[in-house]
Amino acid sequence: MSMTGVLRPGHAAIRVLDLEQGVNFYKNVLGLLETGRDNQGRVYFKAWDERDHNSLVIRQADRPGIDFFAFKVQSKAVLEKLDADLKAYGVTTERIPAGEMLHTGERVRFKIPTGHLIELYAEKTDVGNGMPYVNPETWVPDLKGIAPVRMDHCLLYGGDIDATRKLFEEVLGFSLVERILMEDGKTDLAIWLTCSIKAHDIAFVRHPEDGKLHHVSFLLESWEQVLKAADLMSMNRVSIDMGPTRHGVTRGTTIYAFDPSGNRFETFCGGYQWYPDMQPITWTFDNVGAGVFYHDRKLNPAFLAVVT
Amino acid sequence: MSMTGVLRPGHAAIRVLDLEQGVNFYKNVLGLLETGRDNQGRVYFKAWDERDHNSLVIRQADRPGIDFFAFKVQSKAVLEKLDADLKAYGVTTERIPAGEMLHTGERVRFKIPTGHLIELYAEKTDVGNGMPYVNPETWVPDLKGIAPVRMDHCLLYGGDIDATRKLFEEVLGFSLVERILMEDGKTDLAIWLTCSIKAHDIAFVRHPEDGKLHHVSFLLESWEQVLKAADLMSMNRVSIDMGPTRHGVTRGTTIYAFDPSGNRFETFCGGYQWYPDMQPITWTFDNVGAGVFYHDRKLNPAFLAVVT
Amino acid sequence: MSMTGVLRPGHAAIRVLDLEQGVNFYKNVLGLLETGRDNQGRVYFKAWDERDHNSLVIRQADRPGIDFFAFKVQSKAVLEKLDADLKAYGVTTERIPAGEMLHTGERVRFKIPTGHLIELYAEKTDVGNGMPYVNPETWVPDLKGIAPVRMDHCLLYGGDIDATRKLFEEVLGFSLVERILMEDGKTDLAIWLTCSIKAHDIAFVRHPEDGKLHHVSFLLESWEQVLKAADLMSMNRVSIDMGPTRHGVTRGTTIYAFDPSGNRFETFCGGYQWYPDMQPITWTFDNVGAGVFYHDRKLNPAFLAVVT
Amino acid sequence: MSMTGVLRPGHAAIRVLDLEQGVNFYKNVLGLLETGRDNQGRVYFKAWDERDHNSLVIRQADRPGIDFFAFKVQSKAVLEKLDADLKAYGVTTERIPAGEMLHTGERVRFKIPTGHLIELYAEKTDVGNGMPYVNPETWVPDLKGIAPVRMDHCLLYGGDIDATRKLFEEVLGFSLVERILMEDGKTDLAIWLTCSIKAHDIAFVRHPEDGKLHHVSFLLESWEQVLKAADLMSMNRVSIDMGPTRHGVTRGTTIYAFDPSGNRFETFCGGYQWYPDMQPITWTFDNVGAGVFYHDRKLNPAFLAVVT
Repeated sequence: MSMTGVLRPGHAAIRVLDLEQGVNFYKNVLGLLETGRDNQGRVYFKAWDERDHNSLVIRQADRPGIDFFAFKVQSKAVLEKLDADLKAYGVTTERIPAGEMLHTGERVRFKIPTGHLIELYAEKTDVGNGMPYVNPETWVPDLKGIAPVRMDHCLLYGGDIDATRKLFEEVLGFSLVERILMEDGKTDLAIWLTCSIKAHDIAFVRHPEDGKLHHVSFLLESWEQVLKAADLMSMNRVSIDMGPTRHGVTRGTTIYAFDPSGNRFETFCGGYQWYPDMQPITWTFDNVGAGVFYHDRKLNPAFLAVVT
Repeated sequence: MSMTGVLRPGHAAIRVLDLEQGVNFYKNVLGLLETGRDNQGRVYFKAWDERDHNSLVIRQADRPGIDFFAFKVQSKAVLEKLDADLKAYGVTTERIPAGEMLHTGERVRFKIPTGHLIELYAEKTDVGNGMPYVNPETWVPDLKGIAPVRMDHCLLYGGDIDATRKLFEEVLGFSLVERILMEDGKTDLAIWLTCSIKAHDIAFVRHPEDGKLHHVSFLLESWEQVLKAADLMSMNRVSIDMGPTRHGVTRGTTIYAFDPSGNRFETFCGGYQWYPDMQPITWTFDNVGAGVFYHDRKLNPAFLAVVT
Repeated sequence: MSMTGVLRPGHAAIRVLDLEQGVNFYKNVLGLLETGRDNQGRVYFKAWDERDHNSLVIRQADRPGIDFFAFKVQSKAVLEKLDADLKAYGVTTERIPAGEMLHTGERVRFKIPTGHLIELYAEKTDVGNGMPYVNPETWVPDLKGIAPVRMDHCLLYGGDIDATRKLFEEVLGFSLVERILMEDGKTDLAIWLTCSIKAHDIAFVRHPEDGKLHHVSFLLESWEQVLKAADLMSMNRVSIDMGPTRHGVTRGTTIYAFDPSGNRFETFCGGYQWYPDMQPITWTFDNVGAGVFYHDRKLNPAFLAVVT
Repeated sequence: MSMTGVLRPGHAAIRVLDLEQGVNFYKNVLGLLETGRDNQGRVYFKAWDERDHNSLVIRQADRPGIDFFAFKVQSKAVLEKLDADLKAYGVTTERIPAGEMLHTGERVRFKIPTGHLIELYAEKTDVGNGMPYVNPETWVPDLKGIAPVRMDHCLLYGGDIDATRKLFEEVLGFSLVERILMEDGKTDLAIWLTCSIKAHDIAFVRHPEDGKLHHVSFLLESWEQVLKAADLMSMNRVSIDMGPTRHGVTRGTTIYAFDPSGNRFETFCGGYQWYPDMQPITWTFDNVGAGVFYHDRKLNPAFLAVVT
């Protein structure tokens, strides 16, 4: 197999301040499909073109933020191997039994040096993308809201992004795609990592407080869909942080905005295909603005400051 | 590593009837960059966003068609392993020394059951994509012609696509993404295979004559670029076979057209991301039209008949 | 006023073979809004961004085709003046009383030399575009189907297009924007006329039989919407005549397809802005293919032959 | 004629601080075509799809801003009539002889109540759009820079926009398309006026100082071209004021940015078609943000403050 080990981002578990307000937002404004609710009160969503049962889970809490972020791996054998590799690397792992999340197999959970809980799992029910595996159409009409194609990646903030990068590279098989350097010209301010040929599957920014969420990102299919997303955000009075614009990093086009609880999310499109024979792209500190927001070539104040 | 083994399509070697006519077409109309000529009279091209020295090579001959199609692999160690695996599988391989093609390392060449010559290699000079690895811009202005992002895949016609599929799956680590069945409901008429998360890296159609080329395909970044490509084809009196339209298979938007020597090429955009936990999508024979040309839902006469 | 006299195409009255099949098509596939039914059994539709009550009216009949096509004029005074001008020009006009069509004022109806019934009217109820005149949003979400912005123009086939052109120019104030010449290099095969700065508000093709409809055309906002329209046609098994492609004439991007009764319609986007200081663009007979279908540079057989 | 009187914006005369810097910007970054230089040292430009000799004229001066803005009228007879109408209305007019501007006929110049010089003229040499009137292609390849289709409109700042509006409506035949009200709910803060079916041909904002320029605007053909424009601005280190975004007013998508002398310009796309049977759209003061920048629903500080 050429795609091996960790496949892709699988689910993000997010805290919202008001559950029904959150459900309304993620269903009717972002346009995910609600796929279930569990006896812990969590509500499950998937993007329309995802086949697995869920990719976003929300629960009500007294502060926003992220509980955990998970990757799907190739098989149960790979899950066992990665669990062993993590332990061998010195990482404490925990097993969450199958079924603890709806339609989701056993999960291996561990804390990374930036303080976030990451999970691996091999099984989630294929509930389909609304089109059959035989003679499908090309998309599903009459979707509500922004209707992204899939949950694509997240950007997390925490202290020791160096050790986190090392863990993702050495144990989980991720590769460094792009980096922004700090003023010293050596230390990473931010790193973008991939486990596939996508320009990023997860990213980290160095930040004094551990375990913080910058954004969960959802994939759109065109720049015109990015415009439609911005229009729908305006119609629904969603607070836009930045965009529509383009990132220098990954070249993707993007909007950052906030859910009703203050969690930032991204709707984005594009970005180049990465292969492991590429060198990482490096942004020096004086170009951090262009790296993050390519058109304005400067950061907006919220980018570094506002996280949940 | 999560991307292992075979990375991606690397180069296609095409025969043209008139070299300078071919050079003019691939440079000024398709908009590739000419990167060199060798002492065999071959001319080398790359697409602007490719970093390796070449992805298309043309030579003058008395009939059009494809000489060989190559994949880049992860490393020299992988190259050695795959060569050994091929031999163990019963495939005769040949070594082409480094430098036989400009800026290209040693190649392992072998004939597949459909009669085509396939090559693997691990090294090709990174000549860059016109932008530095440090603080790059997002694209290169003032390109000529259609200017695709990269050479993406090819579709080959030959007899024993079953054995070819088995070889690509069992030795080279490819996966079946989509298939079109023949009237018997069992035999594959066409197969799409991937070595990454792209919906296809190579495809085959069952055909009475071995070793034939249906098309080499070049990636564009948007449906608007597909329109621009069609406009430029008209301005340059390029013979369009079909499109702009959409494929049902892969969902990509597309134009098929012919180079001045009669070799079909494709300029396309889009298609979903494939992961190995998906089942293959199957098109039954009565839906072959929709699978190939989604809008018209019928084949044009040339699709099955015209190959080089 | 700089826009005076005839404002724009106002309504098209089309015959369908099965009323409810037609209603379903125009409402759910083309995505017009049904705005009423009258006691003659006619069903009224408008496009979402039109403010007037109706722009398409269908009735059941034993053969498809067009009953009449109408233009809205600036005021009742203009209506009276144009009626007088028509009579002075030798055209017999008929008055259809206000209310004969729902929410539509008095109409002046007359037959043009190509055998079609044309109407002028000054009043149709502004029922709005789903957004208020005060602090509107920019579009209306959750529309069904293709959802064009407006009914834009029609192309009619008939014998004496020279006299029809003369009448539109000399009495109604239209201008010739583009023309395709016949093999003699002098006679018009086709003419495109405007009453605004649109590249066309009505067009005619010379044809042995009078009073025929080639297509009624609906405006989309982008080439991506043209793709979405083609996709929806495929999903709904609409018979596509040609496209997505581009016209040389007007430069618009386009799809021609057929309603369930065999009436051709167009969904299109784009085209340049015309001003009366431009000369008409002329297409010679050897370039008729490029004029009609710019990418293929040849007519499809149905373009000249299939009308209703 | 249905399009009568004033046809469209014809030319804008802009002051720059450094002529060659300005020439480089308007030619290589904005992508206009330089069409001439006169013995006053003025440099003339046109957008590629304009047929008339010039639409932008720049001269070197010690402060940026606009010298005059002109409209082309239908004929010399219309020019004479409008001059007479202006005088009858109490406006002092001046005749600028033919040839004072290159390839431009006699101009009627007058000062409007907001302190700006407006010109009317009937003749400017049709130098073509790079494509013949017979069998043209659909666009011109290998253009440099942003390459807008045409100079489209301008937004001017001055005191008495009420009297200016009255003059444009009552003498020049313009119509009010949209307005933003001040806090009193009665007074216009801003007005958008058209002389065609475009959503605006000129606009005014109430401002303490007369004769100021907010921006000259250039038309692009798609939202993707707006993205490309923003990318090129970044590559050329153009200072972007706002965008890519959408206006609520006119619904157009837009970028505001500054030329090297500090004159704001706009590259925009879209907007609805206006007809005189529409009521003006009104934005109340509490919605001024959404009217100007639809996505953020708030003004940026520069919008009202920075003019030249």
